[in-house]
Amino acid sequence: MQGIMQDWQLTTNKILEHAKRINPTREIITRRVGGEIVRTSYSQLHDLSKQVSGALIEGGIGLGDRVATLGWNSARHMAAWYGTMGIGAVLHTINPRLHPDQIAWIANHAEDKVLILDTTFLPIIEAVKDKFETIKTYVIFADADNMPENSLGAIAFDDWVAGKSLNASWGDFPEETACGLCYTSGTTGNPKGVLYSHRSNVLHTMITMSKDAMGMGANDVVLPVVPMFHANAWGLAFGCPATGANMVMPGAQMDGASIYELLDTEKVTITAAVPTVWLGLLTYLRENDLKLPHLNKVLIGGSAIPDAILRAFETEYEVDVIHAWGMTETSPLGTLGSLPPHLMDADIDTRMTQKLKQGRPPFGVELKIVDDENNDLAWDGETSGRLVVRGPAIAAGYFKGDGGNVLDENGFFDTGDVANMDEFGTMQITDRAKDVIKSGGEWISSIDIENIAVGHPKVANAAAIGIYHPKWDERPLLIIQAAPGEEPSKEELLAQLEGKIAKWWTPDDVAFIDEIPLGATGKINKLKLREIFKDYKLPTA
Amino acid sequence: MQGIMQDWQLTTNKILEHAKRINPTREIITRRVGGEIVRTSYSQLHDLSKQVSGALIEGGIGLGDRVATLGWNSARHMAAWYGTMGIGAVLHTINPRLHPDQIAWIANHAEDKVLILDTTFLPIIEAVKDKFETIKTYVIFADADNMPENSLGAIAFDDWVAGKSLNASWGDFPEETACGLCYTSGTTGNPKGVLYSHRSNVLHTMITMSKDAMGMGANDVVLPVVPMFHANAWGLAFGCPATGANMVMPGAQMDGASIYELLDTEKVTITAAVPTVWLGLLTYLRENDLKLPHLNKVLIGGSAIPDAILRAFETEYEVDVIHAWGMTETSPLGTLGSLPPHLMDADIDTRMTQKLKQGRPPFGVELKIVDDENNDLAWDGETSGRLVVRGPAIAAGYFKGDGGNVLDENGFFDTGDVANMDEFGTMQITDRAKDVIKSGGEWISSIDIENIAVGHPKVANAAAIGIYHPKWDERPLLIIQAAPGEEPSKEELLAQLEGKIAKWWTPDDVAFIDEIPLGATGKINKLKLREIFKDYKLPTA
Repeated sequence: MQGIMQDWQLTTNKILEHAKRINPTREIITRRVGGEIVRTSYSQLHDLSKQVSGALIEGGIGLGDRVATLGWNSARHMAAWYGTMGIGAVLHTINPRLHPDQIAWIANHAEDKVLILDTTFLPIIEAVKDKFETIKTYVIFADADNMPENSLGAIAFDDWVAGKSLNASWGDFPEETACGLCYTSGTTGNPKGVLYSHRSNVLHTMITMSKDAMGMGANDVVLPVVPMFHANAWGLAFGCPATGANMVMPGAQMDGASIYELLDTEKVTITAAVPTVWLGLLTYLRENDLKLPHLNKVLIGGSAIPDAILRAFETEYEVDVIHAWGMTETSPLGTLGSLPPHLMDADIDTRMTQKLKQGRPPFGVELKIVDDENNDLAWDGETSGRLVVRGPAIAAGYFKGDGGNVLDENGFFDTGDVANMDEFGTMQITDRAKDVIKSGGEWISSIDIENIAVGHPKVANAAAIGIYHPKWDERPLLIIQAAPGEEPSKEELLAQLEGKIAKWWTPDDVAFIDEIPLGATGKINKLKLREIFKDYKLPTA
Repeated sequence: MQGIMQDWQLTTNKILEHAKRINPTREIITRRVGGEIVRTSYSQLHDLSKQVSGALIEGGIGLGDRVATLGWNSARHMAAWYGTMGIGAVLHTINPRLHPDQIAWIANHAEDKVLILDTTFLPIIEAVKDKFETIKTYVIFADADNMPENSLGAIAFDDWVAGKSLNASWGDFPEETACGLCYTSGTTGNPKGVLYSHRSNVLHTMITMSKDAMGMGANDVVLPVVPMFHANAWGLAFGCPATGANMVMPGAQMDGASIYELLDTEKVTITAAVPTVWLGLLTYLRENDLKLPHLNKVLIGGSAIPDAILRAFETEYEVDVIHAWGMTETSPLGTLGSLPPHLMDADIDTRMTQKLKQGRPPFGVELKIVDDENNDLAWDGETSGRLVVRGPAIAAGYFKGDGGNVLDENGFFDTGDVANMDEFGTMQITDRAKDVIKSGGEWISSIDIENIAVGHPKVANAAAIGIYHPKWDERPLLIIQAAPGEEPSKEELLAQLEGKIAKWWTPDDVAFIDEIPLGATGKINKLKLREIFKDYKLPTA
């Protein structure tokens, strides 16, 4: 027997329609590429988005067609999104930090028909434009006066939408309809496209709005430093209009001074970015003896939070830090580090230790840790296992099936991370699954060993990888890049680890290397290290 | 093209499963009928609910079968809910304040197979038990020691679930599956059953969790005075376990002293009830010179908030009052009175005037006001029209089709209320549609006239109804029940209205009556008044 309730499909156009009706004068405040500040109300954004829909329809774009953007956070970028999604076309955000060849590969794989870009990225696109196989229309986020010369035959965004009617029909399709496309690149193989649905984005939006997640309301002012091309600005591009929060868009300027100016003049209450942005802001605040009187909450994700950033925000500036973990495949919110009830009155060190972990899943995200045979592992805060996740905003696969099967027999997505969970669902990532060292059937966290080794004053960088061992399958090798002018000994490095890790985790040997290879995002390239050390013989083997 | 996201069905069992995994030690604190306080963790509640499922399955209850409860708010009542819903049976909450004959009618219409009741309601049920046509099993929320003598052949709840396995399978059905049944009684006709689905209840839960709605988090302690048989305790029976908030259940004791004791000892942060409960609490606080240091937010709904209650909470006790409007058919949240951004810095009178209105709809609730030809009316804060509503948690009809068609051609549900809306979506109810006075094609609000008239010191109660008029179709008649010993004149009553309403709203006559007839819930029985005055001739006619 079915309930007798309305069939109200969860489509993203309803978010902006709600914003226009209920919070018409709330605003997006954009710092444009040229530096000027522009204010766009949700009512104006709605109408501008309708005009984008009109321009797309005139250009022959319809249900399921892909429209790409290569843009900074801005009101025009928001209009491009909602105008595309409203008519059932698919908004494809491209990360401009990728290699231009990879951008071309992705656009071809996605079969993008339209590309809308900021002037900043014009040189990148012009360099590879001959490789694009499907793009017919180029639009630049600018008005006629600020239109750069270009070889793309591009039209200015403001001209593109000028005079278009507001009558485009939105949302006349089922909620499972594709809505957004975002590619994620691993260390090997081609990028893989995550294809969000309207339903998944709306449900993810509702998750972000809950108090222990991002918890924004109509009275908040939210500054997403995290770009819209990073998994929907962690959902803020939907959650802010859904609640009526003001959005402050930093455009291309993400240095400490620029971010501080916006935080201060717009009285920002909630902000979100990766740790490096906050390092820049904190340095600027200290150098200029400034405070953050309006800011209540800072969301930090993308990589683990350094302890110094966490404590600075929490103790010097009285800002609540929410460590968040997620991936493109999880829309992206997976866990959030709001302090759980049993630690509200704990001492500062206990609270900070908790906040350095990745946090707890909100309702709508199911997490498990499993062993290699897919058995559930204990939530004891110590046992590590492969982290798998299930929920309405979690990927079930990749675009065109190019990326392989990622779900287990229970429908859980394998994150590729190794983590432990405590009895209150607090998750702590201990490694990437491909980097974990498997010794005698047990797992050794390479990250733990590296973090301790890198704390030695004579060490510039450190990596731990598994080396073949006839008895234990693998044993850890510690690889050290010495600090300039230093020559640490094997003995003093192993002494550094002593007592801080289990005895059997102690590396069987220490190797020295001039430079530890890094990948494009600055992370250690373990693949290359394993290649370099593939014939290494451990003294114990 | 469909998105490639997981098919995670929105079923209510996932709420309690999340609570057990992530907030296993958070609690429901129940004051039982006998007075003692019992603490039940979400982990225990989950397991107890599984045992209820086991008992139901043993009794032959399955998908779509109706299980009725007649109970106070308690952990056992919660377990009865989740145990029933988890297996796809339908939880039917019966309002014990209905006439026993109506309870029997409803149980028969619903074809309830099981009835679980608190001892308080045993006399009611025993009196009409011979009328029940489908109930096979009676369970009483008690253990063996506290089991009352009864003629129902009832089993004690604790015995019923004792030893049942925890292995009942939950949630193996589509999200559109019926989940809950709640009857609503109008002033005419039989009660009508609203049949909630799992999907509608889960989406409503996510709506309640947003900051500007109820906004509870894991660290909150929530006291729902509003009973679970009133539209799912306004959603709190779902929202609290979904976030991990503690629930404090007052059982049968809702007087000021009992409520205060729970607010204080459990450090309650959020509470919800109808205005009369708060009148009792405020009186108790003043008589005993007490404060509310822990309470942040009080939700008030069910009928309009008196100004005195609003101001007392906001100014004397520094508690944020959220006026909420909804109906059984809206799950129930329709609007909430969180202060909108443009009034955050307004003076106290402006803020209080805003808060006396019914509030603004959250994302997921679409409101419109329309005229009799179903044309949209302006949101100018003045124009009144029929209030219609659309959303994923709004009824599309009634159980068994008994209640007629309630949706218009655009899928909006007619609330039967007359309201105005301002440009920020603030809704203010001005009348019930059936009570509005239609004069010359325009509407006159009976509520406005009554509220002003009743403010006259010589008036005990006042009602305004429409009387036939050959030229204007209807004109208002003001009906007065004088205060004891008073004899107000027609002239002084009309003078009371002067300048406070539009001139053409002025009643054409004033009639006096010994006692204005009231309905079961204390509201003026306009139907009866119209019957009494059906042959009344206006002096102007």
